[in-house]
Amino acid sequence: MNIDELPTPAVVIDLDAVERNIRKMQDFVNSRGCGVRPHAKSHKSPFIAKKQMDAGAVGQCCQTLIEAEALMLNGIDHVLLTTNLASTGAIERFLNLSRNGDIKIIVDGRENAEMLAKAARHRGSSADVVVDLDVGGAKTGQQPGEPAAKFAKWITETDGLRFRGIQGYEGHLQISTPDFEERKAKAMEALGKITATIDALRALGITPEIVTCGGTGTYNISAGYPGVTDIQPGSYIYMDRRYGEIGSAGTDFEKSMTVIATVISAPTPTRAVTDLGWKGVGIEYEAIGFGGMPTPLLPGLKYSPGGDEHGILTASEPRYRPNVGDRVRFLPAHCDTTLNLYGFFYGVRGDRVEVVGPVARR
Amino acid sequence: MNIDELPTPAVVIDLDAVERNIRKMQDFVNSRGCGVRPHAKSHKSPFIAKKQMDAGAVGQCCQTLIEAEALMLNGIDHVLLTTNLASTGAIERFLNLSRNGDIKIIVDGRENAEMLAKAARHRGSSADVVVDLDVGGAKTGQQPGEPAAKFAKWITETDGLRFRGIQGYEGHLQISTPDFEERKAKAMEALGKITATIDALRALGITPEIVTCGGTGTYNISAGYPGVTDIQPGSYIYMDRRYGEIGSAGTDFEKSMTVIATVISAPTPTRAVTDLGWKGVGIEYEAIGFGGMPTPLLPGLKYSPGGDEHGILTASEPRYRPNVGDRVRFLPAHCDTTLNLYGFFYGVRGDRVEVVGPVARR
Repeated sequence: MNIDELPTPAVVIDLDAVERNIRKMQDFVNSRGCGVRPHAKSHKSPFIAKKQMDAGAVGQCCQTLIEAEALMLNGIDHVLLTTNLASTGAIERFLNLSRNGDIKIIVDGRENAEMLAKAARHRGSSADVVVDLDVGGAKTGQQPGEPAAKFAKWITETDGLRFRGIQGYEGHLQISTPDFEERKAKAMEALGKITATIDALRALGITPEIVTCGGTGTYNISAGYPGVTDIQPGSYIYMDRRYGEIGSAGTDFEKSMTVIATVISAPTPTRAVTDLGWKGVGIEYEAIGFGGMPTPLLPGLKYSPGGDEHGILTASEPRYRPNVGDRVRFLPAHCDTTLNLYGFFYGVRGDRVEVVGPVARR
Repeated sequence: MNIDELPTPAVVIDLDAVERNIRKMQDFVNSRGCGVRPHAKSHKSPFIAKKQMDAGAVGQCCQTLIEAEALMLNGIDHVLLTTNLASTGAIERFLNLSRNGDIKIIVDGRENAEMLAKAARHRGSSADVVVDLDVGGAKTGQQPGEPAAKFAKWITETDGLRFRGIQGYEGHLQISTPDFEERKAKAMEALGKITATIDALRALGITPEIVTCGGTGTYNISAGYPGVTDIQPGSYIYMDRRYGEIGSAGTDFEKSMTVIATVISAPTPTRAVTDLGWKGVGIEYEAIGFGGMPTPLLPGLKYSPGGDEHGILTASEPRYRPNVGDRVRFLPAHCDTTLNLYGFFYGVRGDRVEVVGPVARR
């Protein structure tokens, strides 16, 4: 099948570029004596995960149980679930997955850790946990240093829990600060909080097996930092408009994800309408000030949303307006949420479709 | 199953309220001597479509082929596809559906109409088409009045096409103008363009069988307007935060869709974190100035996005902060895009789950 035959809108992944991105990241972390635990929320695919594991990744991160189930039931046996769980059904699903390999989960407080411990004890097992730190993101996480160390100590003394390490993911720094040096300065502050936590743990006689942090925007800041065992970048395999604007990572990795749309109407000399609306491309970055509209990969065109299933292309001059039936490729502003709108991605080499990969969405 | 047992995040539909909304809309259009052709882009579900058809709807509108396929392969035999198609594969899928019932499609120019005619002729059949008018939305559509009438005349003379009527959907007026009287004045302008087109068609000896327009925001302006045969509201069955702010419709219909999330972390006395991020609730209205954040249905809480799978609740006072493990219900800002993020909706009566309905998403 050729990409021109795909039903549109379609998410297309350049597999050659993905493989180069995977290789480049792996070589980089190897050179720093660090591991990589890529985040599967970007790809939601055992097919892509396997490429990362084959290249040498130490495991995968997942943001939902569905992602973890899709990976672990398809041969990926090292997963870190980077979200807390706090309902009985979800915790049971998590514990069931431990039959399929080494699965760990973050915890950030006694409330969620105790729910987990109770359920694990009930089945005579233990849950492997990683303590989540708030390194500045003001979202989830224990306070770094002594509070986190005391919490870890409590975990080591609690039946049903097994302490595996700490996570200090600086999610707030990945795309918010385009300038590399400015981002690095902020990331060093976050890394300092990890160091303080490792020191506090040592003072209590605890050595974390895992110290995980870092994303695509901080990969070359976090990898190699003393004590860090692995980084958890996700978007580096696909990149997107926003990550492309980020100093360092923006030029280090190739953009491999595009969305193909069809021009279905061209009512004026400078207006064309495509079948790409906000049910086909993630525009939510527009809402938080990062620019959310996809970029048409043809000159002289600007995209604006036209509702659920339509996108309007405005041409700066009539000669740039595409015609009805033409296909237009777009670079999405956000790869994660765009992929999440599709049941399948098409993995291509050049114009040839090599694989139709299911997306483990909700 | 009780709603407290559902895996979260979950989209929950109050079936009693949906049935009351369907009844109310049907009674209203009946009283105006008009039909209703509800838009399936809101529900993407043959189960809900059947309730509307049983109440007396004249058919269903669909915005994608997938929606049309989901309905027509599950017993709904009157569908209007309210988007142009302009690729061979898509047109073939559309033509195939005519084996399952009466399916019509909008066209707005010779380019897309000719592609359709050619494919229909090739199989010795005709495609049923409705001429789409630009009544002010500046998206798709023929110019109303004479240009549209001439286009319709050309359709009647073209092998492979069968002219069924006109569509003048005033999509730009549904949620942009909260004040009812102001909206009504604008909608009357759009309706005047439909009248002008009916007149121009008559001058050419053509009588449209279908004159369709109107949405949830204009249902009681369009229904009963001379010449209009049916209206095509979608959101009235579920409503949402934005439609709730719209004068008239906002109070005429009940809000029946909520999203249930779980509090997975509560790191400070005024901060709780839920498992509801922008992969679980449509926030794109925020990007176009209508307010996109979901409203927590508990007092003293404000939602802000925390990435793909997390949402932050900030409590105005510590006593309002929910605890880890608590469930929080939200009213989404936009029902269509929120539902589209889920593989299933849960139809409930009170707290009891009555049906798990598949969502015909991409």
